[in-house]
Amino acid sequence: MFAEIITIGDEILIGQIVDTNSAFIAKQLNLIGVSVYQISSVQDEREHILQAFKEAEERADIVIITGGLGPTKDDITKHTICEYFQDELVEDASVLAHVEQLFKKYFARPISDLNKKQALVPSRSTVLHNQFGTAPGMWLEKGDKTFISLPGVPFEMKGLIQEEVIPRIQNKYKRPYILHKTIITYGLGESALAERIESWEDSLPSFVKLAYLPNVGKVRLRLTAKGTDKDILDSIVEEQIEKLKPLISDIFFSAEEEGSFEVVIGNLLAEMGATLAVAESCTGGKIAEMLTSIPGASRYFNGSVVSYATQAKIDVLGVDEQLISKHSVVSKQVAEAMAQAAQKVFKAHYTIATTGNAGPKKGDSDADVGTVFIAIGTPKGVISEEFNFGNHRERVINKASNKALEMLWKEILEK
Amino acid sequence: MFAEIITIGDEILIGQIVDTNSAFIAKQLNLIGVSVYQISSVQDEREHILQAFKEAEERADIVIITGGLGPTKDDITKHTICEYFQDELVEDASVLAHVEQLFKKYFARPISDLNKKQALVPSRSTVLHNQFGTAPGMWLEKGDKTFISLPGVPFEMKGLIQEEVIPRIQNKYKRPYILHKTIITYGLGESALAERIESWEDSLPSFVKLAYLPNVGKVRLRLTAKGTDKDILDSIVEEQIEKLKPLISDIFFSAEEEGSFEVVIGNLLAEMGATLAVAESCTGGKIAEMLTSIPGASRYFNGSVVSYATQAKIDVLGVDEQLISKHSVVSKQVAEAMAQAAQKVFKAHYTIATTGNAGPKKGDSDADVGTVFIAIGTPKGVISEEFNFGNHRERVINKASNKALEMLWKEILEK
Repeated sequence: MFAEIITIGDEILIGQIVDTNSAFIAKQLNLIGVSVYQISSVQDEREHILQAFKEAEERADIVIITGGLGPTKDDITKHTICEYFQDELVEDASVLAHVEQLFKKYFARPISDLNKKQALVPSRSTVLHNQFGTAPGMWLEKGDKTFISLPGVPFEMKGLIQEEVIPRIQNKYKRPYILHKTIITYGLGESALAERIESWEDSLPSFVKLAYLPNVGKVRLRLTAKGTDKDILDSIVEEQIEKLKPLISDIFFSAEEEGSFEVVIGNLLAEMGATLAVAESCTGGKIAEMLTSIPGASRYFNGSVVSYATQAKIDVLGVDEQLISKHSVVSKQVAEAMAQAAQKVFKAHYTIATTGNAGPKKGDSDADVGTVFIAIGTPKGVISEEFNFGNHRERVINKASNKALEMLWKEILEK
Repeated sequence: MFAEIITIGDEILIGQIVDTNSAFIAKQLNLIGVSVYQISSVQDEREHILQAFKEAEERADIVIITGGLGPTKDDITKHTICEYFQDELVEDASVLAHVEQLFKKYFARPISDLNKKQALVPSRSTVLHNQFGTAPGMWLEKGDKTFISLPGVPFEMKGLIQEEVIPRIQNKYKRPYILHKTIITYGLGESALAERIESWEDSLPSFVKLAYLPNVGKVRLRLTAKGTDKDILDSIVEEQIEKLKPLISDIFFSAEEEGSFEVVIGNLLAEMGATLAVAESCTGGKIAEMLTSIPGASRYFNGSVVSYATQAKIDVLGVDEQLISKHSVVSKQVAEAMAQAAQKVFKAHYTIATTGNAGPKKGDSDADVGTVFIAIGTPKGVISEEFNFGNHRERVINKASNKALEMLWKEILEK
């Protein structure tokens, strides 16, 4: 049971946008037992699209196409689908009514001829209702094969996948069960980890596949199994994970599929009834943004100060000016003072503070580019550590933010 | 002059990670006149990789492959390249010395047998030095065609593309000149914009291609031209843009290739010697994060308070408690008070304040999910506006952050 994803649009091929749609679609398909064989990004160009359709049809049962459904001249997907299916475009009354209604509601003006074209669909297609936009989804069958065309706007595509596409695939195709389990480890490199668990890896059943996914300070181990019996697969993979755990007890972080530090910390704080606040300098709001990206963060997150300018550390947080002049703004002492000040001004049990230089140039201090001090305030006191995260601005900010959450997580566990 | 990009790794096909490498590579290739014909993501599976190599070789002059170069068992790219080129792996002394040195420096331990494998390369390949990691890049030629294999870790891949791959392509191939110019407009939908500029679009020379790229509140118009004479292309495209400008003067934002609001605002503030601070509630640090992602933001950005909890608005910003109880925390009055409070505590000329409910549930107020008040503090006073950005948490945060920067930009221009 294979699918292929084809994204249409020159903007992807010239690197103007990153294709985030394919990862979303692939994840949703995996959840219902459909494997994605290949993802291809092709140009807004008739022959190229036709060739991609042909190749995908040979390899897969389901072909999902995104993009190229706008009303403007550069969008040619619909015409090309008609050519491939030897079909013609006809006006769909329900789509036309929907487009008219959207224009009335949001633009307070009548629909134009250009927008009317959004209601044209291949005569043999089933229309998939796009509640969030004017371009409908389209479902076309060719024997056992199904082609599905969706708009490229992520918000609209997501709605269509969840509301229309997934239920129809579940209805039409018999599918196996695919199980992915991810174990997150931290603090040990990919190759050292591989050596440590080599004999366990060699003893895995042949239908269980292991992958190593290294990322800033963490290595994720992904176990994948595919079969017909959900219960058997679940129990076999669970058994393997239980065998693995004693081998990695010192570096084991989480076995949750989506167990990021933000989520795990949030759950721990909510359970404890404890609160958190952040005082950021070099990370510039990144830590607050990560924490508040989790729905329900308001249960434990009191707030954050980004004290980017030195003066803001004094005025807003109340850090002692003399402490800053004595030790410099990028120092252990200032990081710890910021963490304690944040506990006070936000009335929070736990706090994170960062001060450092993310580059590219030196800022208010003489500290080397990449130097970051991270302090964690807890009900028992304050701890801090010094790091150098290299000379790549974005990477320094990301590494410091991840490390700060890791340090906080450890302090919460040791409470 | 075409290239294809092949990314290898099951993690992309199951939707565990988004492929950001391809966009980076495509952008760098375009800058030197190499068009990307197709991007394909394939599985860590021998036959599939061989098939992808074959298809790409038929269509393109240059094939760039990323991923599958780790030392662990799931990484098979190197062996598969050998099979495709009927070559064998040999140990490269310079790579071995580099890996040994990295281990000594960062892990303070000797290199293991597993890591030694990183020094194996196809005998006919030219090694591309990876200063940031243990997996070398590889350059292989087959007649006029070139295959380039790079590690999938973005940081390492980027270094190799810039330092090794681009100079070698420039050296080996004669390339045309590709020009992309993007005009950013705001506040008018894609189809209304298309109708307004239709006669201009129809009059474009045939070798100038126009694309519409709609995004949260903005539509980008991208003009692309390809040819041999840089000066002629530049002047023709420039001429077309000059003809376009009067048609869109009321919605014209910027003609810069990378002219995001953050960059443009930063440049304006730096020129004026003015400063900026932010008081965020529902946007949770996103606006500060966007502003500080720009190198040099410390010239004008004083800082930010994320007053997520209502109490933090009172304690940290000093917003009047009675004002909040009278009008509710999600209100025009509180947004304006936050903007003014931020001017005071951060001693800033300009401020942005947001208060609202990003969802998924109602928070400290009765406001509907999606309701956001944005206020802009300026040296002349404070303005504010109410919005409803829908019921999708991530989208509400993004839309509110973009809109806030747009409002600030207009206020700065009208000073």
